[in-house]
Amino acid sequence: MSAHLFREIENLKRAILTLGAMAETAVRDATHAIADRNEELARRVIRNDDALDEMEVQIEESCLKTLALYQPVAIDLRFIVAVLKINNDLERVGDLAVNVAERAAFLATQPPVHIAFDFPAMARKAQEMLRKSLDSLVNLSAGLAREVLLGDDEIDAMNRQMYGIVQEAIHTHPDTTESLIHLLSASRHLERIADHATNIAEDVIYMIEGIIVRHKTEEYQPRSRE
Amino acid sequence: MSAHLFREIENLKRAILTLGAMAETAVRDATHAIADRNEELARRVIRNDDALDEMEVQIEESCLKTLALYQPVAIDLRFIVAVLKINNDLERVGDLAVNVAERAAFLATQPPVHIAFDFPAMARKAQEMLRKSLDSLVNLSAGLAREVLLGDDEIDAMNRQMYGIVQEAIHTHPDTTESLIHLLSASRHLERIADHATNIAEDVIYMIEGIIVRHKTEEYQPRSRE
Repeated sequence: MSAHLFREIENLKRAILTLGAMAETAVRDATHAIADRNEELARRVIRNDDALDEMEVQIEESCLKTLALYQPVAIDLRFIVAVLKINNDLERVGDLAVNVAERAAFLATQPPVHIAFDFPAMARKAQEMLRKSLDSLVNLSAGLAREVLLGDDEIDAMNRQMYGIVQEAIHTHPDTTESLIHLLSASRHLERIADHATNIAEDVIYMIEGIIVRHKTEEYQPRSRE
Repeated sequence: MSAHLFREIENLKRAILTLGAMAETAVRDATHAIADRNEELARRVIRNDDALDEMEVQIEESCLKTLALYQPVAIDLRFIVAVLKINNDLERVGDLAVNVAERAAFLATQPPVHIAFDFPAMARKAQEMLRKSLDSLVNLSAGLAREVLLGDDEIDAMNRQMYGIVQEAIHTHPDTTESLIHLLSASRHLERIADHATNIAEDVIYMIEGIIVRHKTEEYQPRSRE
């Protein structure tokens, strides 16, 4: 690999991690805004999304420039294609954090609803998956990435559980229907954030092992971390 | 462009259009299954998803092979990167069609719900956006792609309207809450399908014009078709 290409790849790595950190912050703040009924924090997440969008555009441009100028092959090519896809996922995670923040801004203006669902636990799980997927990229660890894949079922189960609880609560407290539907929405946005973390983890594994693991999750075995 | 690269790009074009047609069929059948309360049709959509997943994996492999073997530049490079991203979008459209089909399979077992929402109209709009986004790719038409972008607000408005109607219906017919929430889900899946059509259209414009239009939708002006 030429020194130029090496430098470009290092720059791309730094840029995608910066975008990842921005996306993580957005998710964390948006879910805190729900839990703390903090409208100001929710508004901040919404305002900050432009910066994420700009960063995504810059990263894609850099990937295309690197592909055209240095014509990388093998692992370098796979890395750049992975960055292109992960870039897309992170931008959408930012959009979903905005969606959660919009729900938070609304919920903060309503009387609190009390349901038997641990929203903060679901939020933590989604954030943990996102963080691990980015760590698996930095450390090129297929083991860490596989841990992310195992988390996906857990989040799906939480989301399904939320469905049942909200339906029940609508029956017993029909006056809070609107807030409950907004909460249900927020839980589905978290589930989609976890989906993107799963996509990122799959791309990392794909890049590392050069094998396609997508659509074959039932075959995964957890492994110790490399 | 070498004859080999030309042939590879033609193959990729054919493959992505085949995947697009499969995704369109899945969306059409899933929404028909909702409208006609047809459980058998819904089950068929769910069964057929494996074929879409396989096709996506093959297309990504072909893109990587083409990038490594022929090291395309300029418009060819942009085309292959666009195919990589559109491939991803189409696979997720297939997943969303499965989600709609799962709702359809459930709803078919329940008494029909009557709400003042034109679900088939929303389904037609989402399908039209998907079809136009693929047409814009085949014809390399930025004009057609821009029409897709304009449709996105319409679908979002329909989805927001659905929200209000379902909330209202839950109040007046609490016995149908479960079916109503499933219908609301189906409408949100349609909205996400339209989002993917929008992503595809943006990638087509980006490829054609070499400019980034993402995150700048407010500046679009509808144009006549090229």
